[in-house]
Amino acid sequence: MTLFEKHQGTITKAIEALHARTFYAAFVENPAPAVYGETADADGQAKFKSILGKKFEELKQANPTSWGGQEESPYLQEELKIAYPIFTSGVLIERAKKTFHQWRKVSAQDRAGILMESLEKVKARFFEIAYATMHTTGQGYMMAFQASGPHAADRALEAITAGYEELNRFPSSAIWEKPMGKFNLQLNKEWRAVPKGISIVIGCSTFPTWNSVTGIYGSLITGNSVIVKPHPGAILPIAIFVAEIQKVLLENNLDPTICQLAVDTFDKMITKELAEHPEVKLIDFTGNSSFGSYLEALPGKTIFTEKTGVNSVILDSVDDVDKVAANLAFSVNLYSGQMCTAPQNFYIPADGIKTATGHVSFDQFAEKFVANINGLVDNPKAGPFVLGAVQNKKTSERVIEAEKIGGKVWLKSRTFENPMFKNARVATPVVIEVDGSKKEIFGKELFGPIALLIKTKNTDQSIELAQEMAQQHGAISCGAYTTNEVVKEKIADEMSLAATPVSFNLVGGIYMNQNAAFSDFHVTGGNPSGNASFTNPEYVTKRFTWVGHREPVK
Amino acid sequence: MTLFEKHQGTITKAIEALHARTFYAAFVENPAPAVYGETADADGQAKFKSILGKKFEELKQANPTSWGGQEESPYLQEELKIAYPIFTSGVLIERAKKTFHQWRKVSAQDRAGILMESLEKVKARFFEIAYATMHTTGQGYMMAFQASGPHAADRALEAITAGYEELNRFPSSAIWEKPMGKFNLQLNKEWRAVPKGISIVIGCSTFPTWNSVTGIYGSLITGNSVIVKPHPGAILPIAIFVAEIQKVLLENNLDPTICQLAVDTFDKMITKELAEHPEVKLIDFTGNSSFGSYLEALPGKTIFTEKTGVNSVILDSVDDVDKVAANLAFSVNLYSGQMCTAPQNFYIPADGIKTATGHVSFDQFAEKFVANINGLVDNPKAGPFVLGAVQNKKTSERVIEAEKIGGKVWLKSRTFENPMFKNARVATPVVIEVDGSKKEIFGKELFGPIALLIKTKNTDQSIELAQEMAQQHGAISCGAYTTNEVVKEKIADEMSLAATPVSFNLVGGIYMNQNAAFSDFHVTGGNPSGNASFTNPEYVTKRFTWVGHREPVK
Repeated sequence: MTLFEKHQGTITKAIEALHARTFYAAFVENPAPAVYGETADADGQAKFKSILGKKFEELKQANPTSWGGQEESPYLQEELKIAYPIFTSGVLIERAKKTFHQWRKVSAQDRAGILMESLEKVKARFFEIAYATMHTTGQGYMMAFQASGPHAADRALEAITAGYEELNRFPSSAIWEKPMGKFNLQLNKEWRAVPKGISIVIGCSTFPTWNSVTGIYGSLITGNSVIVKPHPGAILPIAIFVAEIQKVLLENNLDPTICQLAVDTFDKMITKELAEHPEVKLIDFTGNSSFGSYLEALPGKTIFTEKTGVNSVILDSVDDVDKVAANLAFSVNLYSGQMCTAPQNFYIPADGIKTATGHVSFDQFAEKFVANINGLVDNPKAGPFVLGAVQNKKTSERVIEAEKIGGKVWLKSRTFENPMFKNARVATPVVIEVDGSKKEIFGKELFGPIALLIKTKNTDQSIELAQEMAQQHGAISCGAYTTNEVVKEKIADEMSLAATPVSFNLVGGIYMNQNAAFSDFHVTGGNPSGNASFTNPEYVTKRFTWVGHREPVK
Repeated sequence: MTLFEKHQGTITKAIEALHARTFYAAFVENPAPAVYGETADADGQAKFKSILGKKFEELKQANPTSWGGQEESPYLQEELKIAYPIFTSGVLIERAKKTFHQWRKVSAQDRAGILMESLEKVKARFFEIAYATMHTTGQGYMMAFQASGPHAADRALEAITAGYEELNRFPSSAIWEKPMGKFNLQLNKEWRAVPKGISIVIGCSTFPTWNSVTGIYGSLITGNSVIVKPHPGAILPIAIFVAEIQKVLLENNLDPTICQLAVDTFDKMITKELAEHPEVKLIDFTGNSSFGSYLEALPGKTIFTEKTGVNSVILDSVDDVDKVAANLAFSVNLYSGQMCTAPQNFYIPADGIKTATGHVSFDQFAEKFVANINGLVDNPKAGPFVLGAVQNKKTSERVIEAEKIGGKVWLKSRTFENPMFKNARVATPVVIEVDGSKKEIFGKELFGPIALLIKTKNTDQSIELAQEMAQQHGAISCGAYTTNEVVKEKIADEMSLAATPVSFNLVGGIYMNQNAAFSDFHVTGGNPSGNASFTNPEYVTKRFTWVGHREPVK
């Protein structure tokens, strides 16, 4: 049985889900012992601990220039001291250039089989990856497990299947027969899906696997060789993915450097060297807007970016205001506001919000919102695990500075005790009231747990501002609460024009921060928050070119 | 019956053909009276003549700033003196901005029906368009009829169906139901295909409808408003298309300025004003590389370009060298080498070409090639009609200058008499021998009837040069002649890496210049000759954005 045959069932189901856009998950997000095994968690944690302070020797990349790594745990505020093999960009490119010609000749089916097999191998390491993610990104345990493990694997599977489908969208050959009156002109035609060449995937510090695997697997399924350039602060989670891909390549008699890890250090970053190299044709990037825009402007390359945005919540009318406040408080607390989908700007009419039981004033909502944030932070069984730790010192500084941006401070940021990690870098949300006229304050991304309650004239102004922010500064998510169908359609339509998906009236255990594989297009590509989407057809079709040859039938 | 229902059968067949990539033509390319009617040709010619010297008053665009037009017939070398309504870019944009919001709300089915209906109306004017095309581009009658009429209409249909299919690729709604253990989380999800906004389509002087209708219909089917900016030298053919689109829009109670014609004059071109306007989101362009590259670099826009290239023919081994020489001679004579798919560089090994009856030396092939060119030019029943006239004076100058580029001149360019148009601007092909080392001579596009016979060391060098030219300067077509399967696969593979389609061993009545709708991807988008392809999925998906909204099921 080939690897493709082994995984064909999953691929078929995934393609169906991709089109139905109904729920599908090939990898279970529940880390329960009943699912992954009694000792899986402990084993993963032990494996993670065993790597600390050592060389990461799993990669099949020979002759490094040196070994290095500067990861630091936001929970321990200590260096992990893991050393990775370091290569010059020249060596990385040369190897990618050579192995491209091997990989591009592997059939789409065999590529799909190999890539699926690598995900199955990674599945056995989900817990190890979870601890690696916690101690590089600061994510809480549950998010670290889900986002870096099963959800990332599902997104990778989505990219594999989307690519596999596009590669098979047109026939590899056909007879073209044109009636010419007295005879038929016949041509044998054939079409090749030609990969673009070398692909680099530039990772971020907060979601080192979830945001990178789509580019890695999307480029690999379409036949490109891939260089994975992780953020120097979050290497280990994606290093494990790359190591497993390399092992499966080797087992199938292919050169493991078809997919390489390109570790660098803060003092000697090689991202620009790689990105600007003429042999590099594809670039995937997750990160800040200025670097993303620099990449987008590089000539002669195909670029996929997820940058930053200003996410809005429009509050018009609700059934149960307490449930709404609780849901939104969770959204800003979750991973201390470090998700690209976290809300920042909450637009509330000056005369308050209509509810099933009467009007709730602006101040009353602000009080409920603050109370719910505090309630979650101060719940020792939930708060520390939902908020996690702060990945970057600068985020902590930004949260403190935010108190002075101008406007009533409804809630100051503070610290709390994480029972497992006394030394964790933490910050609770700061909540500030800002007038709807002060775009200079709220018209930019304030990354981290920073929530702005923006007082607007009415819901029409709220919609207008949310749309303008998305069109000018980008937006990846939007929350909206309204019980009025006309207002709802207006929000849906106006935010559509800003290419921003809207989550309406979420309460309970579902949050605007969440995007599901196979169903939600993550980032639309239609506003400045990014030019690509997980995983619409463009996300894979741009990674190869259809080339047709033809010859008269003999 | 809705317009969609009326045309549904054609759309269904076209979608099938798009995927099977077999022969399909909805519009008959044969201008015979039996097909289009006994008086169709004479009527069309009369209609064309009746427009000369007058205002073109068919457009539904009110209040022009002025009337103007500078078209000139390459056959008569006289001005056509047709005056078109002229508008400022500000007026054009304002109207497009307003009508965008009307058009985007029309369903995909209704849009498809309206656009199909416009093609049916255009069909009744194919002969008029043919004469308009002859007397603006200089194309021969048959090409003018086929390329601007039925072939353009087929390409437009291809864009409509490709767009229609992509708009229906994902469901407009679905219930997403996630098992959460004790209960299922249910979300109503909906997805909208949101058009990008205002689209401009910039035409060229040689194929004013064929190269523009894909962008026009591709943008319209996906819900964008369109401003058609024709080349000032070739307006009338596409003006007729736009007029018919506007009439059908009006008949369906829609604002006809959903699709506008933006005529300008050589002394006051408005292309840059339109292209740089922030409200313009989509740009289609056919034309020279420098303007195309300027457009591609405009930030925040989606650009589709067809620029220029250096097309190669690789001669290795043939069955019948005379048939090959005849076929290639036709290719360089056809429309006096003014097709973007015309061959320029002919790579021939210094020791000649293997044939079924022995070796043919480089010089012997050159002689046969020249003899075949002359034979066709000097055939009064074929030559004038195959060569047509030269659109631009500069092309005639370039052909004369080409004699001095360095290298043996095998054939000088000359004129000939067109029996119907004594004053036609004509130029026959110039044929020059160039050494394979002289890339400075053959490493650029020499637009017009200029053929370079490049003497290479062997076929390997021929392939290497053809690939290098395509990768560095772009290529839209490639011809190759070989009877050796190993050589054939090498050419197919190496040219694939340069994203260039290869026509192998063409003899008889099929030429490398020709690209068929529904089967051949015209331009691959993978080399510098252009960044887009007629019509791969990207060609339409980039014209809209998928945006998904969601809400808990009540």
